[in-house]
Amino acid sequence: MEFKEKSTYYRERFERVLSERLNALDASAPNGITVPMRYAVENGGKRIRPILCYATAETLGVSLYEVDDIAVAIESIHSYSLVHDDLPAMDNDDFRRGKLSTHKKFGEAHGILAGDALLNFAFETALDKKDINADYINAVRYVAKCAGYGGMIGGQVRDIEGTEKTEGNLCKIIENKTAKLIKAPIVAASLISGGKYLKELEEFGDALGFLFQITDDIMDVTGSFAELGKTPDKDVKESKTTAVSVLGLEKARELAENYREKAKNSVKNIPDSEFLAQFAEAVFSRKS
Amino acid sequence: MEFKEKSTYYRERFERVLSERLNALDASAPNGITVPMRYAVENGGKRIRPILCYATAETLGVSLYEVDDIAVAIESIHSYSLVHDDLPAMDNDDFRRGKLSTHKKFGEAHGILAGDALLNFAFETALDKKDINADYINAVRYVAKCAGYGGMIGGQVRDIEGTEKTEGNLCKIIENKTAKLIKAPIVAASLISGGKYLKELEEFGDALGFLFQITDDIMDVTGSFAELGKTPDKDVKESKTTAVSVLGLEKARELAENYREKAKNSVKNIPDSEFLAQFAEAVFSRKS
Repeated sequence: MEFKEKSTYYRERFERVLSERLNALDASAPNGITVPMRYAVENGGKRIRPILCYATAETLGVSLYEVDDIAVAIESIHSYSLVHDDLPAMDNDDFRRGKLSTHKKFGEAHGILAGDALLNFAFETALDKKDINADYINAVRYVAKCAGYGGMIGGQVRDIEGTEKTEGNLCKIIENKTAKLIKAPIVAASLISGGKYLKELEEFGDALGFLFQITDDIMDVTGSFAELGKTPDKDVKESKTTAVSVLGLEKARELAENYREKAKNSVKNIPDSEFLAQFAEAVFSRKS
Repeated sequence: MEFKEKSTYYRERFERVLSERLNALDASAPNGITVPMRYAVENGGKRIRPILCYATAETLGVSLYEVDDIAVAIESIHSYSLVHDDLPAMDNDDFRRGKLSTHKKFGEAHGILAGDALLNFAFETALDKKDINADYINAVRYVAKCAGYGGMIGGQVRDIEGTEKTEGNLCKIIENKTAKLIKAPIVAASLISGGKYLKELEEFGDALGFLFQITDDIMDVTGSFAELGKTPDKDVKESKTTAVSVLGLEKARELAENYREKAKNSVKNIPDSEFLAQFAEAVFSRKS
Protein backbone atom coordinates (compact mmCIF):
# COMPACT_ATOMS: atom_id res chain seq x y z
CA MET A 1 0.00 0.00 0.00
CA GLU A 2 1.14 3.52 -0.74
CA PHE A 3 1.79 5.94 2.13
CA LYS A 4 -1.41 7.90 1.58
CA GLU A 5 -3.58 4.79 1.36
CA LYS A 6 -2.01 3.32 4.45
CA SER A 7 -2.45 6.58 6.31
CA THR A 8 -6.12 6.67 5.34
CA TYR A 9 -6.52 3.04 6.34
CA TYR A 10 -5.18 3.74 9.85
CA ARG A 11 -7.20 6.91 10.21
CA GLU A 12 -10.41 5.20 9.15
CA ARG A 13 -9.80 2.33 11.51
CA PHE A 14 -9.31 4.83 14.29
CA GLU A 15 -12.51 6.76 13.50
CA ARG A 16 -14.44 3.50 13.51
CA VAL A 17 -12.96 2.35 16.85
CA LEU A 18 -13.49 5.79 18.39
CA SER A 19 -17.15 5.83 17.28
CA GLU A 20 -17.65 2.39 18.75
CA ARG A 21 -16.24 3.49 22.09
CA LEU A 22 -18.28 6.69 22.09
CA ASN A 23 -21.46 4.92 21.06
CA ALA A 24 -20.90 2.64 24.04
CA LEU A 25 -20.86 5.55 26.51
CA ASP A 26 -23.28 4.91 29.36
CA ALA A 27 -26.63 6.18 28.07
CA SER A 28 -27.76 7.05 31.58
CA ALA A 29 -25.06 9.75 31.81
CA PRO A 30 -26.36 13.26 31.13
CA ASN A 31 -26.17 14.59 27.56
CA GLY A 32 -24.71 17.72 29.14
CA ILE A 33 -21.43 15.84 29.42
CA THR A 34 -21.47 13.23 26.65
CA VAL A 35 -22.45 15.66 23.88
CA PRO A 36 -19.59 18.12 24.52
CA MET A 37 -17.16 15.22 24.97
CA ARG A 38 -18.09 13.86 21.55
CA TYR A 39 -18.03 17.33 20.02
CA ALA A 40 -14.48 17.84 21.26
CA VAL A 41 -13.04 14.50 20.18
CA GLU A 42 -15.02 13.90 16.96
CA ASN A 43 -13.69 17.09 15.47
CA GLY A 44 -12.09 16.03 12.24
CA GLY A 45 -8.56 16.17 13.59
CA LYS A 46 -5.64 14.70 11.67
CA ARG A 47 -5.38 11.80 14.12
CA ILE A 48 -1.62 11.73 13.82
CA ARG A 49 -1.14 10.11 17.24
CA PRO A 50 -3.44 7.14 16.54
CA ILE A 51 -1.94 6.72 13.07
CA LEU A 52 1.55 6.61 14.60
CA CYS A 53 0.38 4.10 17.18
CA TYR A 54 -1.06 1.75 14.56
CA ALA A 55 1.90 2.15 12.23
CA THR A 56 4.41 1.38 14.99
CA ALA A 57 2.36 -1.60 16.13
CA GLU A 58 2.22 -3.00 12.60
CA THR A 59 5.96 -2.44 12.13
CA LEU A 60 6.62 -4.45 15.28
CA GLY A 61 4.15 -7.23 14.51
CA VAL A 62 1.68 -6.19 17.23
CA SER A 63 -1.95 -6.62 16.18
CA LEU A 64 -3.78 -3.33 15.69
CA TYR A 65 -6.49 -4.66 17.94
CA GLU A 66 -4.00 -4.60 20.83
CA VAL A 67 -3.45 -0.86 20.54
CA ASP A 68 -6.99 0.32 19.76
CA ASP A 69 -7.69 1.40 23.33
CA ILE A 70 -4.35 3.12 23.81
CA ALA A 71 -4.92 5.02 20.56
CA VAL A 72 -8.34 6.20 21.76
CA ALA A 73 -6.85 7.13 25.13
CA ILE A 74 -4.05 9.24 23.63
CA GLU A 75 -6.38 11.03 21.22
CA SER A 76 -8.78 11.75 24.11
CA ILE A 77 -5.90 13.30 26.03
CA HIS A 78 -4.92 15.37 23.01
CA SER A 79 -8.54 16.51 22.57
CA TYR A 80 -9.04 17.48 26.22
CA SER A 81 -5.82 19.51 26.11
CA LEU A 82 -7.19 21.50 23.16
CA VAL A 83 -10.51 22.11 24.95
CA HIS A 84 -8.79 23.50 28.03
CA ASP A 85 -6.24 25.35 25.92
CA ASP A 86 -9.06 27.23 24.16
CA LEU A 87 -10.61 28.45 27.43
CA PRO A 88 -10.71 32.22 28.06
CA ALA A 89 -8.14 31.97 30.88
CA MET A 90 -5.77 30.14 28.54
CA ASP A 91 -5.49 30.94 24.81
CA ASN A 92 -9.07 32.25 24.57
CA ASP A 93 -9.83 30.79 21.15
CA ASP A 94 -13.42 30.88 19.90
CA PHE A 95 -12.75 28.58 16.97
CA ARG A 96 -11.03 25.28 16.43
CA ARG A 97 -10.84 23.76 12.95
CA GLY A 98 -13.45 26.21 11.69
CA LYS A 99 -16.03 25.18 14.30
CA LEU A 100 -16.83 26.90 17.58
CA SER A 101 -14.49 25.73 20.31
CA THR A 102 -16.12 23.48 22.91
CA HIS A 103 -16.59 26.14 25.59
CA LYS A 104 -18.01 28.59 23.03
CA LYS A 105 -20.53 26.00 21.88
CA PHE A 106 -21.57 24.65 25.28
CA GLY A 107 -20.48 27.29 27.81
CA GLU A 108 -17.36 27.56 29.89
CA ALA A 109 -18.37 25.27 32.77
CA HIS A 110 -19.29 22.54 30.30
CA GLY A 111 -16.01 23.08 28.48
CA ILE A 112 -14.00 22.63 31.67
CA LEU A 113 -15.98 19.53 32.63
CA ALA A 114 -15.89 18.01 29.13
CA GLY A 115 -12.12 18.40 29.14
CA ASP A 116 -11.88 16.74 32.55
CA ALA A 117 -14.19 13.98 31.35
CA LEU A 118 -12.06 13.30 28.27
CA LEU A 119 -8.88 13.05 30.33
CA ASN A 120 -10.61 10.70 32.73
CA PHE A 121 -12.14 8.76 29.79
CA ALA A 122 -8.63 8.19 28.44
CA PHE A 123 -7.79 6.07 31.47
CA GLU A 124 -11.23 4.45 31.63
CA THR A 125 -10.68 3.33 28.04
CA ALA A 126 -7.05 2.31 28.37
CA LEU A 127 -7.91 0.09 31.35
CA ASP A 128 -11.17 -1.28 29.94
CA LYS A 129 -9.50 -4.30 28.39
CA LYS A 130 -9.35 -7.96 29.22
CA ASP A 131 -6.09 -9.79 29.96
CA ILE A 132 -4.00 -6.74 30.77
CA ASN A 133 -0.36 -7.78 31.15
CA ALA A 134 2.70 -6.03 32.54
CA ASP A 135 3.80 -4.74 29.11
CA TYR A 136 0.42 -3.14 28.57
CA ILE A 137 0.52 -1.51 32.03
CA ASN A 138 3.96 -0.14 31.17
CA ALA A 139 2.46 1.44 28.08
CA VAL A 140 -0.45 3.06 29.95
CA ARG A 141 1.93 4.30 32.65
CA TYR A 142 4.19 5.78 29.97
CA VAL A 143 1.27 7.59 28.34
CA ALA A 144 0.19 8.95 31.73
CA LYS A 145 3.69 10.31 32.37
CA CYS A 146 3.89 11.94 28.95
CA ALA A 147 0.56 13.67 29.54
CA GLY A 148 1.12 14.88 33.10
CA TYR A 149 2.89 17.56 35.12
CA GLY A 150 6.26 16.20 33.96
CA GLY A 151 5.12 16.14 30.33
CA MET A 152 2.42 17.92 28.35
CA ILE A 153 0.88 19.86 31.24
CA GLY A 154 4.30 20.96 32.46
CA GLY A 155 5.02 22.11 28.93
CA GLN A 156 1.80 24.11 28.86
CA VAL A 157 2.85 25.88 32.04
CA ARG A 158 6.27 26.66 30.60
CA ASP A 159 4.54 27.96 27.48
CA ILE A 160 2.17 30.34 29.25
CA GLU A 161 4.91 31.53 31.61
CA GLY A 162 7.64 31.54 28.98
CA THR A 163 8.88 35.04 28.51
CA GLU A 164 12.53 34.06 28.26
CA LYS A 165 13.05 33.42 24.55
CA THR A 166 16.17 31.27 24.66
CA GLU A 167 16.88 28.16 22.65
CA GLY A 168 17.07 26.15 25.89
CA ASN A 169 13.62 27.30 26.96
CA LEU A 170 12.22 26.68 23.49
CA CYS A 171 13.52 23.10 23.58
CA LYS A 172 11.97 22.42 26.97
CA ILE A 173 8.61 23.80 25.82
CA ILE A 174 8.58 21.77 22.59
CA GLU A 175 9.83 18.62 24.28
CA ASN A 176 7.13 18.70 26.94
CA LYS A 177 4.18 20.45 25.36
CA THR A 178 4.30 18.69 22.01
CA ALA A 179 6.94 16.02 21.58
CA LYS A 180 6.05 13.82 24.55
CA LEU A 181 2.47 13.21 23.42
CA ILE A 182 3.63 12.49 19.86
CA LYS A 183 6.25 10.11 21.21
CA ALA A 184 3.68 8.45 23.49
CA PRO A 185 1.76 6.38 20.89
CA ILE A 186 5.02 5.25 19.26
CA VAL A 187 6.74 4.22 22.49
CA ALA A 188 3.51 2.73 23.87
CA ALA A 189 3.29 0.41 20.87
CA SER A 190 6.90 -0.64 21.44
CA LEU A 191 6.25 -1.27 25.14
CA ILE A 192 3.23 -3.41 24.25
CA SER A 193 5.47 -5.44 21.95
CA GLY A 194 7.70 -6.11 24.96
CA GLY A 195 10.07 -3.26 24.14
CA LYS A 196 11.10 -4.02 20.55
CA TYR A 197 13.39 -1.27 19.13
CA LEU A 198 12.51 0.84 22.15
CA LYS A 199 15.57 3.09 22.02
CA GLU A 200 15.26 3.71 18.27
CA LEU A 201 11.55 4.46 18.55
CA GLU A 202 12.06 6.81 21.48
CA GLU A 203 14.54 8.74 19.36
CA PHE A 204 12.16 8.66 16.40
CA GLY A 205 9.22 9.91 18.48
CA ASP A 206 11.29 12.66 19.99
CA ALA A 207 12.61 13.88 16.63
CA LEU A 208 9.16 13.63 15.03
CA GLY A 209 7.63 15.62 17.89
CA PHE A 210 10.16 18.43 17.47
CA LEU A 211 9.70 18.32 13.69
CA PHE A 212 5.94 18.58 14.13
CA GLN A 213 6.10 21.64 16.39
CA ILE A 214 8.76 23.44 14.38
CA THR A 215 6.80 22.98 11.12
CA ASP A 216 3.72 24.19 12.99
CA ASP A 217 5.55 27.32 14.09
CA ILE A 218 6.80 27.89 10.52
CA MET A 219 3.34 27.45 8.99
CA ASP A 220 1.96 29.87 11.53
CA VAL A 221 4.00 32.56 9.84
CA THR A 222 4.32 31.47 6.21
CA GLY A 223 0.81 30.02 5.89
CA SER A 224 -0.75 33.25 6.99
CA PHE A 225 1.52 35.28 4.72
CA ALA A 226 0.54 33.23 1.69
CA GLU A 227 -3.15 33.42 2.38
CA LEU A 228 -3.59 36.87 3.80
CA GLY A 229 -0.41 38.68 3.05
CA LYS A 230 -0.06 39.29 6.77
CA THR A 231 0.05 37.40 10.01
CA PRO A 232 -3.28 38.02 11.71
CA ASP A 233 -2.10 37.58 15.28
CA LYS A 234 1.56 38.30 14.84
CA ASP A 235 1.80 40.22 18.10
CA VAL A 236 0.34 37.37 20.04
CA LYS A 237 2.67 34.95 18.34
CA GLU A 238 5.63 37.17 18.91
CA SER A 239 5.01 37.17 22.63
CA LYS A 240 5.17 33.36 22.53
CA THR A 241 8.31 31.28 22.53
CA THR A 242 8.20 29.55 19.13
CA ALA A 243 10.88 28.18 16.83
CA VAL A 244 10.40 31.21 14.58
CA SER A 245 10.31 33.83 17.35
CA VAL A 246 13.48 32.42 18.92
CA LEU A 247 15.51 31.33 15.89
CA GLY A 248 14.06 33.22 12.96
CA LEU A 249 12.47 31.60 9.93
CA GLU A 250 15.61 30.45 8.17
CA LYS A 251 17.17 28.74 11.16
CA ALA A 252 13.82 27.19 12.06
CA ARG A 253 13.71 25.64 8.59
CA GLU A 254 17.22 24.27 8.99
CA LEU A 255 16.26 22.80 12.35
CA ALA A 256 13.20 21.15 10.80
CA GLU A 257 15.46 19.56 8.18
CA ASN A 258 17.76 18.28 10.90
CA TYR A 259 14.90 16.70 12.80
CA ARG A 260 13.52 15.13 9.63
CA GLU A 261 16.90 13.48 9.04
CA LYS A 262 17.21 12.49 12.67
CA ALA A 263 13.76 10.90 12.60
CA LYS A 264 14.49 8.97 9.40
CA ASN A 265 17.88 7.82 10.68
CA SER A 266 16.42 6.58 13.95
CA VAL A 267 14.26 3.99 12.23
CA LYS A 268 16.52 3.01 9.34
CA ASN A 269 17.55 -0.27 11.00
CA ILE A 270 14.02 -1.27 11.93
CA PRO A 271 12.53 -3.72 9.39
CA ASP A 272 9.25 -2.66 7.73
CA SER A 273 9.53 0.88 9.06
CA GLU A 274 9.12 2.66 5.68
CA PHE A 275 5.81 4.15 6.75
CA LEU A 276 7.41 5.81 9.78
CA ALA A 277 10.18 7.36 7.66
CA GLN A 278 7.59 8.54 5.13
CA PHE A 279 5.57 10.00 7.96
CA ALA A 280 8.51 12.19 8.97
CA GLU A 281 8.85 13.29 5.35
CA ALA A 282 5.13 14.12 5.19
CA VAL A 283 5.29 16.19 8.38
CA PHE A 284 8.24 18.10 6.97
CA SER A 285 6.42 18.87 3.70
CA ARG A 286 2.97 19.54 5.13
CA LYS A 287 1.00 22.67 4.34
CA SER A 288 -1.52 22.21 7.18
CA MET B 1 -7.76 1.37 69.45
CA GLU B 2 -10.62 3.80 69.88
CA PHE B 3 -12.36 5.20 66.79
CA LYS B 4 -10.70 8.62 67.07
CA GLU B 5 -7.22 7.20 67.54
CA LYS B 6 -7.68 4.82 64.64
CA SER B 7 -8.98 7.62 62.46
CA THR B 8 -5.96 9.75 63.32
CA TYR B 9 -3.65 6.81 62.68
CA TYR B 10 -5.06 6.34 59.14
CA ARG B 11 -5.01 10.06 58.42
CA GLU B 12 -1.43 10.44 59.55
CA ARG B 13 -0.34 7.48 57.48
CA PHE B 14 -2.01 9.05 54.49
CA GLU B 15 -0.37 12.45 55.01
CA ARG B 16 3.01 10.75 55.26
CA VAL B 17 2.47 8.67 52.10
CA LEU B 18 1.12 11.69 50.22
CA SER B 19 4.16 13.78 51.21
CA GLU B 20 6.48 11.01 50.07
CA ARG B 21 4.77 10.86 46.68
CA LEU B 22 4.79 14.64 46.31
CA ASN B 23 8.41 14.95 47.42
CA ALA B 24 9.23 12.45 44.68
CA LEU B 25 7.71 14.64 41.95
CA ASP B 26 10.18 15.11 39.11
CA ALA B 27 12.30 18.08 40.16
CA SER B 28 12.89 19.10 36.55
CA ALA B 29 9.18 19.90 36.13
CA PRO B 30 8.38 23.61 36.44
CA ASN B 31 7.42 24.97 39.87
CA GLY B 32 4.56 26.66 38.04
CA ILE B 33 2.78 23.31 38.03
CA THR B 34 4.13 21.40 41.04
CA VAL B 35 3.60 24.24 43.54
CA PRO B 36 -0.12 24.72 42.75
CA MET B 37 -0.60 20.94 42.65
CA ARG B 38 0.80 20.61 46.16
CA TYR B 39 -1.14 23.65 47.36
CA ALA B 40 -4.37 22.07 46.17
CA VAL B 41 -3.86 18.60 47.58
CA GLU B 42 -1.96 19.44 50.80
CA ASN B 43 -4.82 21.57 52.01
CA GLY B 44 -5.70 20.13 55.37
CA GLY B 45 -8.72 18.23 54.12
CA LYS B 46 -10.46 15.64 56.27
CA ARG B 47 -9.06 12.80 54.10
CA ILE B 48 -12.21 10.78 54.52
CA ARG B 49 -11.66 8.84 51.30
CA PRO B 50 -8.14 7.65 52.20
CA ILE B 51 -9.30 6.82 55.74
CA LEU B 52 -12.13 4.71 54.33
CA CYS B 53 -9.74 2.99 51.97
CA TYR B 54 -7.34 2.03 54.75
CA ALA B 55 -10.13 1.01 57.11
CA THR B 56 -11.76 -1.24 54.52
CA ALA B 57 -8.40 -2.76 53.61
CA GLU B 58 -7.64 -3.53 57.26
CA THR B 59 -11.11 -5.00 57.78
CA LEU B 60 -10.52 -7.36 54.86
CA GLY B 61 -6.96 -8.30 55.81
CA VAL B 62 -5.35 -6.36 52.94
CA SER B 63 -2.07 -4.68 53.92
CA LEU B 64 -2.30 -0.89 54.06
CA TYR B 65 0.77 -0.77 51.86
CA GLU B 66 -1.29 -2.35 49.06
CA VAL B 67 -3.76 0.53 49.00
CA ASP B 68 -1.42 3.49 49.55
CA ASP B 69 -1.30 4.43 45.88
CA ILE B 70 -5.02 4.05 45.32
CA ALA B 71 -5.63 6.26 48.36
CA VAL B 72 -3.34 8.97 46.96
CA ALA B 73 -5.01 8.62 43.55
CA ILE B 74 -8.54 9.05 44.92
CA GLU B 75 -7.58 12.02 47.08
CA SER B 76 -5.87 13.64 44.08
CA ILE B 77 -9.07 13.21 42.08
CA HIS B 78 -11.09 14.71 44.92
CA SER B 79 -8.65 17.65 45.14
CA TYR B 80 -8.65 18.39 41.42
CA SER B 81 -12.46 18.38 41.42
CA LEU B 82 -12.44 21.07 44.12
CA VAL B 83 -9.90 23.19 42.20
CA HIS B 84 -12.02 23.13 39.04
CA ASP B 85 -15.23 23.53 41.04
CA ASP B 86 -13.90 26.78 42.53
CA LEU B 87 -13.15 28.34 39.11
CA PRO B 88 -15.06 31.50 38.13
CA ALA B 89 -17.00 29.65 35.42
CA MET B 90 -18.10 27.06 37.98
CA ASP B 91 -18.87 27.93 41.64
CA ASN B 92 -16.56 30.97 41.65
CA ASP B 93 -15.24 30.48 45.17
CA ASP B 94 -12.29 32.58 46.30
CA PHE B 95 -11.69 30.57 49.46
CA ARG B 96 -11.40 26.92 50.36
CA ARG B 97 -10.84 25.87 53.96
CA GLY B 98 -9.98 29.44 54.91
CA LYS B 99 -7.19 29.71 52.34
CA LEU B 100 -7.34 31.28 48.89
CA SER B 101 -8.62 28.79 46.36
CA THR B 102 -5.96 27.52 43.95
CA HIS B 103 -6.91 29.75 41.00
CA LYS B 104 -7.09 32.80 43.28
CA LYS B 105 -3.62 32.08 44.60
CA PHE B 106 -1.91 31.18 41.31
CA GLY B 107 -4.17 32.58 38.58
CA GLU B 108 -6.90 30.95 36.58
CA ALA B 109 -4.74 29.29 33.90
CA HIS B 110 -2.57 27.71 36.58
CA GLY B 111 -5.69 26.59 38.44
CA ILE B 112 -7.05 24.84 35.37
CA LEU B 113 -3.69 23.19 34.64
CA ALA B 114 -3.05 22.20 38.28
CA GLY B 115 -6.46 20.51 38.33
CA ASP B 116 -5.67 18.69 35.12
CA ALA B 117 -2.28 17.69 36.50
CA LEU B 118 -3.80 16.28 39.70
CA LEU B 119 -6.30 14.19 37.76
CA ASN B 120 -3.51 12.90 35.55
CA PHE B 121 -1.27 12.37 38.60
CA ALA B 122 -3.97 10.15 40.10
CA PHE B 123 -3.47 7.63 37.32
CA GLU B 124 0.31 8.08 37.22
CA THR B 125 0.34 7.20 40.91
CA ALA B 126 -2.17 4.37 40.79
CA LEU B 127 -0.20 2.67 38.02
CA ASP B 128 3.26 3.38 39.48
CA LYS B 129 3.41 0.11 41.36
CA LYS B 130 5.26 -3.13 40.91
CA ASP B 131 3.50 -6.47 40.44
CA ILE B 132 0.14 -5.10 39.38
CA ASN B 133 -2.37 -7.94 39.20
CA ALA B 134 -5.86 -8.24 37.73
CA ASP B 135 -7.57 -7.41 41.04
CA TYR B 136 -5.59 -4.20 41.33
CA ILE B 137 -6.45 -3.23 37.74
CA ASN B 138 -10.12 -3.83 38.56
CA ALA B 139 -9.77 -1.40 41.44
CA VAL B 140 -8.12 1.33 39.33
CA ARG B 141 -10.72 0.83 36.60
CA TYR B 142 -13.48 1.14 39.18
CA VAL B 143 -12.03 4.38 40.54
CA ALA B 144 -11.76 5.77 37.00
CA LYS B 145 -15.42 4.98 36.33
CA CYS B 146 -16.55 6.57 39.60
CA ALA B 147 -14.65 9.74 38.74
CA GLY B 148 -15.67 10.13 35.09
CA TYR B 149 -18.54 11.24 32.87
CA GLY B 150 -20.69 8.40 34.25
CA GLY B 151 -19.80 9.32 37.84
CA MET B 152 -18.52 12.43 39.57
CA ILE B 153 -18.16 14.61 36.45
CA GLY B 154 -21.61 13.59 35.22
CA GLY B 155 -22.95 14.51 38.67
CA GLN B 156 -21.28 17.92 38.45
CA VAL B 157 -23.02 18.55 35.14
CA ARG B 158 -26.37 17.51 36.60
CA ASP B 159 -25.70 19.81 39.54
CA ILE B 160 -24.91 22.91 37.48
CA GLU B 161 -27.80 22.21 35.10
CA GLY B 162 -30.19 21.03 37.78
CA THR B 163 -33.14 23.35 37.91
CA GLU B 164 -35.71 20.59 38.38
CA LYS B 165 -35.90 20.13 42.15
CA THR B 166 -37.38 16.65 42.35
CA GLU B 167 -36.37 13.84 44.66
CA GLY B 168 -35.36 11.75 41.64
CA ASN B 169 -33.03 14.45 40.36
CA LEU B 170 -31.62 15.02 43.85
CA CYS B 171 -30.81 11.31 44.12
CA LYS B 172 -29.04 11.26 40.77
CA ILE B 173 -26.97 14.31 41.70
CA ILE B 174 -25.96 12.93 45.11
CA GLU B 175 -25.27 9.44 43.75
CA ASN B 176 -22.97 10.71 41.02
CA LYS B 177 -21.45 13.90 42.34
CA THR B 178 -20.69 12.68 45.86
CA ALA B 179 -21.51 9.07 46.61
CA LYS B 180 -19.51 7.42 43.86
CA LEU B 181 -16.18 8.93 44.93
CA ILE B 182 -16.87 8.04 48.58
CA LYS B 183 -17.80 4.51 47.53
CA ALA B 184 -14.68 4.27 45.35
CA PRO B 185 -12.02 3.80 48.09
CA ILE B 186 -14.21 1.27 49.91
CA VAL B 187 -15.03 -0.81 46.85
CA ALA B 188 -11.46 -0.47 45.53
CA ALA B 189 -10.13 -2.03 48.73
CA SER B 190 -12.60 -4.89 48.36
CA LEU B 191 -11.62 -5.43 44.72
CA ILE B 192 -7.94 -5.53 45.72
CA SER B 193 -8.83 -8.21 48.27
CA GLY B 194 -10.26 -10.24 45.40
CA GLY B 195 -13.81 -9.04 46.01
CA LYS B 196 -14.39 -9.88 49.70
CA TYR B 197 -17.81 -8.68 50.90
CA LEU B 198 -18.12 -6.71 47.66
CA LYS B 199 -21.90 -6.44 47.67
CA GLU B 200 -22.09 -5.38 51.32
CA LEU B 201 -19.35 -2.81 50.87
CA GLU B 202 -20.96 -1.39 47.73
CA GLU B 203 -24.14 -0.89 49.75
CA PHE B 204 -22.17 0.60 52.62
CA GLY B 205 -20.30 3.01 50.33
CA ASP B 206 -23.47 4.08 48.64
CA ALA B 207 -25.32 4.73 51.92
CA LEU B 208 -22.32 6.51 53.42
CA GLY B 209 -22.00 8.72 50.35
CA PHE B 210 -25.65 9.77 50.57
CA LEU B 211 -25.30 10.29 54.31
CA PHE B 212 -22.26 12.48 53.76
CA GLN B 213 -23.95 14.74 51.22
CA ILE B 214 -27.22 15.03 53.12
CA THR B 215 -25.43 15.99 56.36
CA ASP B 216 -23.41 18.47 54.29
CA ASP B 217 -26.60 20.03 52.95
CA ILE B 218 -28.05 20.19 56.46
CA MET B 219 -24.93 21.81 57.94
CA ASP B 220 -24.98 24.32 55.14
CA VAL B 221 -28.18 25.67 56.62
CA THR B 222 -27.97 24.93 60.34
CA GLY B 223 -24.24 25.59 60.70
CA SER B 224 -24.60 29.02 59.23
CA PHE B 225 -27.66 29.79 61.34
CA ALA B 226 -25.85 28.89 64.53
CA GLU B 227 -22.77 30.91 63.68
CA LEU B 228 -24.16 33.90 61.89
CA GLY B 229 -27.85 33.88 62.57
CA LYS B 230 -28.34 33.85 58.81
CA THR B 231 -27.40 31.82 55.80
CA PRO B 232 -24.81 33.89 53.96
CA ASP B 233 -25.46 32.58 50.47
CA LYS B 234 -28.98 31.37 50.93
CA ASP B 235 -30.08 32.51 47.49
CA VAL B 236 -27.31 30.63 45.84
CA LYS B 237 -28.09 27.55 47.87
CA GLU B 238 -31.77 27.83 47.17
CA SER B 239 -31.15 27.76 43.47
CA LYS B 240 -29.27 24.49 43.94
CA THR B 241 -30.80 21.06 44.24
CA THR B 242 -29.89 20.00 47.79
CA ALA B 243 -31.48 17.64 50.29
CA VAL B 244 -32.76 20.67 52.22
CA SER B 245 -33.99 22.65 49.20
CA VAL B 246 -35.88 19.62 47.85
CA LEU B 247 -37.10 17.91 51.03
CA GLY B 248 -36.99 20.55 53.72
CA LEU B 249 -34.84 20.33 56.86
CA GLU B 250 -36.94 17.85 58.81
CA LYS B 251 -37.26 15.30 56.04
CA ALA B 252 -33.58 15.70 55.21
CA ARG B 253 -32.75 14.79 58.81
CA GLU B 254 -34.98 11.71 58.63
CA LEU B 255 -33.31 10.68 55.41
CA ALA B 256 -29.87 11.07 57.02
CA GLU B 257 -31.00 8.78 59.85
CA ASN B 258 -32.19 6.21 57.33
CA TYR B 259 -28.87 6.24 55.52
CA ARG B 260 -26.95 5.96 58.78
CA GLU B 261 -28.97 2.83 59.62
CA LYS B 262 -28.57 1.50 56.10
CA ALA B 263 -24.82 1.98 56.24
CA LYS B 264 -24.50 0.28 59.62
CA ASN B 265 -26.72 -2.62 58.56
CA SER B 266 -24.72 -3.19 55.38
CA VAL B 267 -21.56 -4.04 57.29
CA LYS B 268 -23.04 -5.80 60.31
CA ASN B 269 -22.11 -9.27 59.02
CA ILE B 270 -18.56 -8.30 58.09
CA PRO B 271 -16.07 -9.32 60.81
CA ASP B 272 -13.92 -6.53 62.26
CA SER B 273 -16.00 -3.82 60.60
CA GLU B 274 -16.69 -1.78 63.77
CA PHE B 275 -14.66 1.13 62.48
CA LEU B 276 -16.81 1.39 59.35
CA ALA B 277 -20.03 1.40 61.39
CA GLN B 278 -18.55 4.03 63.72
CA PHE B 279 -17.53 6.07 60.71
CA ALA B 280 -21.17 6.23 59.57
CA GLU B 281 -22.14 7.32 63.08
CA ALA B 282 -19.46 10.02 63.06
CA VAL B 283 -20.59 11.37 59.68
CA PHE B 284 -24.15 11.53 60.98
CA SER B 285 -23.13 13.46 64.11
CA ARG B 286 -20.51 15.72 62.55
CA LYS B 287 -20.56 19.47 62.97
CA SER B 288 -18.12 20.18 60.12
